Amino acid sequence: MCRIAVAAYLGRARGVRVDPGRIVITQGFTQALHLLCHVLADRGATTIAMETPSHSDLRTTTRAAGLEPVGCLVDADGLRTTDLYALDASAVVVAPAHQFPTGVVLAPERRGALIGWAANRGALVIEDDYDAEFRYDRNAVGAVQGLDPGHVAHVGTASKTLAPGVRLGWISLPTDLIDDVRDLKGVTDSGSPIVDQLALAHLITSGAYERHVVRARHIYRRRRDRLVQALSTKLPRPQIMGKAAGMQVLLRLPDRLDDVAIARTAGRHRIGLRALSPLHLSPSPERGLLLGYGRLSEPRIDQAVDALAAVLNR
Amino acid sequence: MCRIAVAAYLGRARGVRVDPGRIVITQGFTQALHLLCHVLADRGATTIAMETPSHSDLRTTTRAAGLEPVGCLVDADGLRTTDLYALDASAVVVAPAHQFPTGVVLAPERRGALIGWAANRGALVIEDDYDAEFRYDRNAVGAVQGLDPGHVAHVGTASKTLAPGVRLGWISLPTDLIDDVRDLKGVTDSGSPIVDQLALAHLITSGAYERHVVRARHIYRRRRDRLVQALSTKLPRPQIMGKAAGMQVLLRLPDRLDDVAIARTAGRHRIGLRALSPLHLSPSPERGLLLGYGRLSEPRIDQAVDALAAVLNR
Repeated sequence: MCRIAVAAYLGRARGVRVDPGRIVITQGFTQALHLLCHVLADRGATTIAMETPSHSDLRTTTRAAGLEPVGCLVDADGLRTTDLYALDASAVVVAPAHQFPTGVVLAPERRGALIGWAANRGALVIEDDYDAEFRYDRNAVGAVQGLDPGHVAHVGTASKTLAPGVRLGWISLPTDLIDDVRDLKGVTDSGSPIVDQLALAHLITSGAYERHVVRARHIYRRRRDRLVQALSTKLPRPQIMGKAAGMQVLLRLPDRLDDVAIARTAGRHRIGLRALSPLHLSPSPERGLLLGYGRLSEPRIDQAVDALAAVLNR
Repeated sequence: MCRIAVAAYLGRARGVRVDPGRIVITQGFTQALHLLCHVLADRGATTIAMETPSHSDLRTTTRAAGLEPVGCLVDADGLRTTDLYALDASAVVVAPAHQFPTGVVLAPERRGALIGWAANRGALVIEDDYDAEFRYDRNAVGAVQGLDPGHVAHVGTASKTLAPGVRLGWISLPTDLIDDVRDLKGVTDSGSPIVDQLALAHLITSGAYERHVVRARHIYRRRRDRLVQALSTKLPRPQIMGKAAGMQVLLRLPDRLDDVAIARTAGRHRIGLRALSPLHLSPSPERGLLLGYGRLSEPRIDQAVDALAAVLNR
């Protein structure tokens, strides 16, 4: 029942082509990645390509499943898909709709190139569609999976739309992966909680889920606007990236600056933010601060930026 | 908060000695076993001892985590702990309070011997405390963990007390396993659902959980009584084992009978039961049928036994 609701939702909201029988419900994106990597490793894979920069936790998860992550650079058009051919990788993890942490969108020609690489190499695209619901200034970018369901495992999650603590995600799988992923899920934890799945199915089929997303999008957009305005007012010529979607922006800093030290200082002043540099897989001069605004009310955003400006002025 | 509630519950209901910091919340017993086996395998373990007979799904889970299961016989006093010394195993999975599927209780001297083996070999006892809440004719048997928290990982679950679909379990860990198990849980699925954990914590701290267990125990005892009476009336001298606790009894059949075929025939007559012989890890002449009564109302129990008697008479 949950898979029926999710399949219908993915079709209309994300352009994913899937039927319920090809969906496996997981404990959020983390478990989805864990299961996919384990199945690939069992089939002989050793290496997985990953966007650089990207979320460092993903690497821990792929390593625990036996796949060594190798970085593939992201530029203003997203993942540099031509670089994939130089990597001997059985899969790639990519967030085409809203790259983390740069916020870029994968360019249309690269979407095709990504699928082309997967087909050419018999590789798997793991599409991390973690927050595509929250795009503010134009229509949402559809999932790459819709281009070629046979080479893409599309992963969605309720972590951004509902709450991270919900721990519900879903994989739309190519046919040849279904049995192995489903079996491993059973062996690993005997399936996800039924009550939670029924609640999600009810939210989706009643329309409440999508109404909630619209309401939340409106609130996050206002927070985004307030944050960008505050940064523009209180900082000298700030370079703000990734503001078109999601729940964080990337404030670029001058190259080679110690963004980790700045984040640590900010933490001591009770401003929670992440440094960009630990998110690189390969050495890079690019520095920055990730500013999340998902949990900040509008008045607190101004206070936070004041405090950040004071830290940066030192 | 959930771990605080669970620690208090385990102390008063099961005699487990644990503080909340040594508890990891899991997706039921399956994930608990999966995590423990993975951590042991990462530390170099290759083999895990397992009661024979026991649940065949457990073997699939240990194998997926890289540990080969080896059988250790169960007799009327439970696991034959002296046999453990002949096995080169880093751990043993055992259900001391109510062995599955025989229903026997681990004898007091063997409880001590089990701990002695673990201390002697530096091995881990994985205590599967899956349904000890449902003991009908005398007080519950306390957890072995209380004897030596340093050598036992005690695993409890809401699967029998609430419902299998709840997917909540808890491991009480020896100190030297906490960090590794917690880290692996994070890497595997970023933690269990928060709403479910808060609900469980509320059930426990409000007293509703234990009141529910008392009510459920009363209902299951009546079903158990009805089933045993029906079997005694409708079958010639039935050998019924494991009736003192849990939600199933084991109906022993003459040795070497094809219990799998009988279970299959019963299935065609819409009686769901399991054969004993696939649960043996090593060849055994013992045959039987596992009759679960957890979901059967009392009137349906009579009908089911009538139908079973008809199948057996053929």
